[in-house]
Amino acid sequence: ENLNLELALKILKKAEEKAVEINKPMCIAVVDAGGNLLAFHRMDDALLVSIEIAINKAFTAVMLKMETSRLAELAKPNGELFGINNAYNGRIVPFGGGIPIFKNGKLIGAIGVSGGTVDEDVVVAKAGISAI
Amino acid sequence: ENLNLELALKILKKAEEKAVEINKPMCIAVVDAGGNLLAFHRMDDALLVSIEIAINKAFTAVMLKMETSRLAELAKPNGELFGINNAYNGRIVPFGGGIPIFKNGKLIGAIGVSGGTVDEDVVVAKAGISAI
Amino acid sequence: ENLNLELALKILKKAEEKAVEINKPMCIAVVDAGGNLLAFHRMDDALLVSIEIAINKAFTAVMLKMETSRLAELAKPNGELFGINNAYNGRIVPFGGGIPIFKNGKLIGAIGVSGGTVDEDVVVAKAGISAI
Amino acid sequence: ENLNLELALKILKKAEEKAVEINKPMCIAVVDAGGNLLAFHRMDDALLVSIEIAINKAFTAVMLKMETSRLAELAKPNGELFGINNAYNGRIVPFGGGIPIFKNGKLIGAIGVSGGTVDEDVVVAKAGISAI
Repeated sequence: ENLNLELALKILKKAEEKAVEINKPMCIAVVDAGGNLLAFHRMDDALLVSIEIAINKAFTAVMLKMETSRLAELAKPNGELFGINNAYNGRIVPFGGGIPIFKNGKLIGAIGVSGGTVDEDVVVAKAGISAI
Repeated sequence: ENLNLELALKILKKAEEKAVEINKPMCIAVVDAGGNLLAFHRMDDALLVSIEIAINKAFTAVMLKMETSRLAELAKPNGELFGINNAYNGRIVPFGGGIPIFKNGKLIGAIGVSGGTVDEDVVVAKAGISAI
Repeated sequence: ENLNLELALKILKKAEEKAVEINKPMCIAVVDAGGNLLAFHRMDDALLVSIEIAINKAFTAVMLKMETSRLAELAKPNGELFGINNAYNGRIVPFGGGIPIFKNGKLIGAIGVSGGTVDEDVVVAKAGISAI
Repeated sequence: ENLNLELALKILKKAEEKAVEINKPMCIAVVDAGGNLLAFHRMDDALLVSIEIAINKAFTAVMLKMETSRLAELAKPNGELFGINNAYNGRIVPFGGGIPIFKNGKLIGAIGVSGGTVDEDVVVAKAGISAI
């Protein structure tokens, strides 16, 4: 089973509520298990750069089946995967805010959040996933 | 005044209702006056190609301040703008489904719809704009 | 249910046998329902351009849930979707040789073939799908 | 003499057997001496990011006539080739898993493996080359 729009919007709603709570306008994206975009919302006053970063964080989380925060360490100059962020035309994002979504152990999609500090992005992404 | 997320979601809602009415799953995008994505929903079973096409139709409508359906004629081999669809890394879409949104004569954004025939896309895009 | 490697290799085998039969070296690609590559074989002496074309024909068939041969008409200067082949960084291929694969009415992937005339590519693609 | 499909499939087979043995689903690619893709298999449950990484590791090994693991050191901020991974639209991969294949001292192609840790990728790549 894959994510559908209804579920994606529930995830967006939870994430947006958290973003309002911490008072940081965010861009939030949800992709399916193939990495293809399902839904995206840009909150008012969110950074424009966050549009692409949010979408690509979700994409990255699906591509690597891991939280993008884990990639931060791996992609550093002394990390095992230094240079990986060039892959897929630069779409691989090596810092936190993208989290894969699993159901019964199977990847069904991911959320990507951008707009605050990395820590804030992660908090909002986790809030989004709590909808499931 | 520019579009905001609240207004974008109203537009998406109207468009989605029309898409349900004509029984065609669609991808629907709303961009602001800078051509930057505000909101995007992919309805269940919509074509994957429509993700990018919907976003780019909205982008095109802002870039040219015209309905993308008008561009169809202009971009043909004998048209005045033949080749324009190569611009912006191929993001200019020369067929219907993208419509700019004006308020008091000023461009404030655009909607882009993809997933049905071009006529269906246009119908859904117009339904979306009726929300304003 | 999605395609897996075992099934993809059966499809490749059938397609390759047909390519040998008509004496045309081909590139043959199989992608999953998300458009992501599963398997690819380039037969000896196949054209190098066919590597990318075969992969992109399969991608296109998934993106549009249709045979790429149908897109040939739609993408012509007077066709409804003229210009669509610019989408996805030029990955949309508007001529025959890409065929979506359905199981119980649900898209599970696609085959893409390139190396001969378009008619030959289609024949080989259909032979591949006969494996299912 | 260059690699051909038959030889490429033998290489893939050996690599896949090793991947099964260490219980890590992998993407495995073989390219010819021109860096052009000959064969590619994605094993079930392999990471999607590995599709492109595997192909690009093989490409990198041909482009530089060296194992991509050697490039890791060279591409670091203090390395002699810092920045090289931007070349060829980001296709140069600076970590292990790509190995050039020589015959009588002449480059005939390369294998690229992605899906596990870098060490696992290297082990599977070497197993693949043992087929020759």
